[in-house]
Amino acid sequence: MFTNFVSAHQVSPADAMQLIDRAEGFKHGTPVPAHGPVYAANLFFENSTRTHTSFEMAERKLGLTVIPFDPSHSSVTKGETLEDTIKTLAAIGINIAVMRHPADAYYEPLLAASPTLAIVNAGDGAGQHPSQMMLDLMTIHEEFGGFTGLNIGIVGDLSHSRVAHSDAEMLTKLGANIFFSGPEKWFSPEYKQFGPYLPLAELVPKVDVLMLLRVQLERFNADESGAFSKESYHQKYGVTDALAQTMKSRAIIMHPAPVNRDVELASDLVEAPQSRIFMQMHNGVFMRMAMLEAVMHARRFGEVGAAAPAMSERR
Amino acid sequence: MFTNFVSAHQVSPADAMQLIDRAEGFKHGTPVPAHGPVYAANLFFENSTRTHTSFEMAERKLGLTVIPFDPSHSSVTKGETLEDTIKTLAAIGINIAVMRHPADAYYEPLLAASPTLAIVNAGDGAGQHPSQMMLDLMTIHEEFGGFTGLNIGIVGDLSHSRVAHSDAEMLTKLGANIFFSGPEKWFSPEYKQFGPYLPLAELVPKVDVLMLLRVQLERFNADESGAFSKESYHQKYGVTDALAQTMKSRAIIMHPAPVNRDVELASDLVEAPQSRIFMQMHNGVFMRMAMLEAVMHARRFGEVGAAAPAMSERR
Amino acid sequence: MFTNFVSAHQVSPADAMQLIDRAEGFKHGTPVPAHGPVYAANLFFENSTRTHTSFEMAERKLGLTVIPFDPSHSSVTKGETLEDTIKTLAAIGINIAVMRHPADAYYEPLLAASPTLAIVNAGDGAGQHPSQMMLDLMTIHEEFGGFTGLNIGIVGDLSHSRVAHSDAEMLTKLGANIFFSGPEKWFSPEYKQFGPYLPLAELVPKVDVLMLLRVQLERFNADESGAFSKESYHQKYGVTDALAQTMKSRAIIMHPAPVNRDVELASDLVEAPQSRIFMQMHNGVFMRMAMLEAVMHARRFGEVGAAAPAMSERR
Repeated sequence: MFTNFVSAHQVSPADAMQLIDRAEGFKHGTPVPAHGPVYAANLFFENSTRTHTSFEMAERKLGLTVIPFDPSHSSVTKGETLEDTIKTLAAIGINIAVMRHPADAYYEPLLAASPTLAIVNAGDGAGQHPSQMMLDLMTIHEEFGGFTGLNIGIVGDLSHSRVAHSDAEMLTKLGANIFFSGPEKWFSPEYKQFGPYLPLAELVPKVDVLMLLRVQLERFNADESGAFSKESYHQKYGVTDALAQTMKSRAIIMHPAPVNRDVELASDLVEAPQSRIFMQMHNGVFMRMAMLEAVMHARRFGEVGAAAPAMSERR
Repeated sequence: MFTNFVSAHQVSPADAMQLIDRAEGFKHGTPVPAHGPVYAANLFFENSTRTHTSFEMAERKLGLTVIPFDPSHSSVTKGETLEDTIKTLAAIGINIAVMRHPADAYYEPLLAASPTLAIVNAGDGAGQHPSQMMLDLMTIHEEFGGFTGLNIGIVGDLSHSRVAHSDAEMLTKLGANIFFSGPEKWFSPEYKQFGPYLPLAELVPKVDVLMLLRVQLERFNADESGAFSKESYHQKYGVTDALAQTMKSRAIIMHPAPVNRDVELASDLVEAPQSRIFMQMHNGVFMRMAMLEAVMHARRFGEVGAAAPAMSERR
Repeated sequence: MFTNFVSAHQVSPADAMQLIDRAEGFKHGTPVPAHGPVYAANLFFENSTRTHTSFEMAERKLGLTVIPFDPSHSSVTKGETLEDTIKTLAAIGINIAVMRHPADAYYEPLLAASPTLAIVNAGDGAGQHPSQMMLDLMTIHEEFGGFTGLNIGIVGDLSHSRVAHSDAEMLTKLGANIFFSGPEKWFSPEYKQFGPYLPLAELVPKVDVLMLLRVQLERFNADESGAFSKESYHQKYGVTDALAQTMKSRAIIMHPAPVNRDVELASDLVEAPQSRIFMQMHNGVFMRMAMLEAVMHARRFGEVGAAAPAMSERR
């Protein structure tokens, strides 16, 4: 029951398959069932094009009413806590808050803040990004029809990624084999349980899915960033045109984007036939529809005859 | 006739009762009558979560079309006057501009700017905040069924409040008894006509409604702010847990929010059974629906057969 | 076929007449034909009240679904290129991107970026501003019923204007006579093909339409700006009350706004009977409806039975 959707840990393999099925249905034209008014707000405390726009689109396709919220013009600037902001939105009648915030697990104290408001996590610090994980699964499923026995390579900034850990964990549960590469110092111990570290030249020819991670330049501190140039990263840890030649014939390239062109990936490969990068974005809208719908169902939002969320009265 | 809704001074006791009645109706499910397209824009030149989001929600529940407007991305940044901005919005077809602005009575020169556009004031400087006053009245009415003979205590930053004066004036007209407390130097002479200043320990046990005001730390100048610490303010002028024990058994706590927790009010009292703080926010949506509808009726916006707002032609 | 609408050069005289006719129809109540869902986003990388708000209004009157996009909160801040932003929006399902950007011809590399997304240019650097041109034509047509033989004076900051060149070129094609004035050093050679430079006192009594241009103070560099005061500009190159007395009796004043009052134009003339400045804004909504509709038709957006924009599949 997705009364909130905040973490990959909530998602069982059966849940994943059901959400993928529903998202693929929406993609191929399954109409959205009619429902009563449901109010959503998108609270993005970090910049985003893809995730923010994709949720906005998914909400409208689902028939939700979206109430605008701009953190930089809100009372958060007057020192209001996130918890009070959420209680305020609940009191005003918002049903679903889609949130991105730089603090890891920012959502934990919010889950108890209001019984009438659902939180959907669109990314927390270096923590979770469940909608990205789900759209990645959908894209792989669409390509290969399943996960068992697939070889998946996850390459790049593992230590800063809110996608790598979730994807590795869920894909392992679904029967895939995981391999990691990128700068070895970013291969932290937590990843060992899911699969081995391989040199990139060894990983690339082996995998069916080459999942690249964004090098989050903006999170490097000054010292670290001095150690890399874009060119040297690309040669050592990026997928060059030459390296891409060694891929299996049906293997695909994925990336959560925005891509640092010619850093993680040679620029012309972004639109190459084996790239699914823009397809991931396309699928994201339908997956977010499925996720939001799951929350609506769990909460009975918009149901005729469902108890309207009500403020508790004292007497 | 609310052709604009800018000030508490416009509101007679009969108007207030009618608006409360309509807002309570919306709260309990009175459907919104069908109407033709009406266009609203929200111009918030000061940050806000509650008021801004509440108006956005009220507009959508009323079936208005909301055109986004962000002052920081507007031509105001090129030196355009507020008057020319309003004339522009009117020319483009906006019917209702909901505005918050730091200048006292910013709306005065705007009322004549366009005959086709209504102004709804969502707060001007240290002046008026009529929708806050109206939702306060609604919350008190809902609790006690009337106003006559109620004892109301208004406590805190009286000199910077755009709510205190309006609430005191209207509640007096409606038959309530008003008492003030907080730092005595903020009890300016204008308040004496409505009621006496009392020490807080004397006021709290006496009142049915304890209306606290936000200490607007952001408006203090450096000198004044140095004179207060949060702790010392809370001990001298805030409602502590101990003080709250002296309240009447059916008395309620109100606050326009955002609350400075442990300054005006002990943090755990914000959600205590006697608090109506989140209920005020909840009621605000329905009251703003009633206010916007009153403006629509006065202007005949959205009426079938009503003269469409038209640009005047020269010949 | 307006598969994109980026430049005045695309618009033939026959196109112009057809768009004017459609816009005038919308203004006088022609209903918008029903259509399937079409998704628009407005990407304003420069501040704007009029153009941005006008497009937002036009989109809603046309029944488009508008997905919010704020460049300052987007991944553009993480270094994403405009081209990748457009590809992203296309992948997410946006059909029409209305854009304003400070770079001249920013749209050129974007036209090939996605086969499923239309670009509507709302102003590029000192380049094109086709919707302003079209609403100017509509306003003149509405006043005089045609263009042949009309005398049109274009006055002011010719070198920085994205309107002057387009208007002069199109009005010439439509049979009008063009005259220029303002600081003579801004009368660059490209304008000579359309008409002569005249001293302002000679131009004003001669014209049917006095089109003033905004002095774009914000684009002056420090040196240039030091050379002008508002007062001296107004006396030398602005339309003073005295000068306006010399206009023909049926002549009109136009200005794309925002007006620098008492610089290009005496303040009281902005609302004078001969001014069409607010009528231009009013007409702009209907013209933008006609332009967006032309793009929808060219692309078959929203048509029942039209091929849905689809992501290309690899196999």
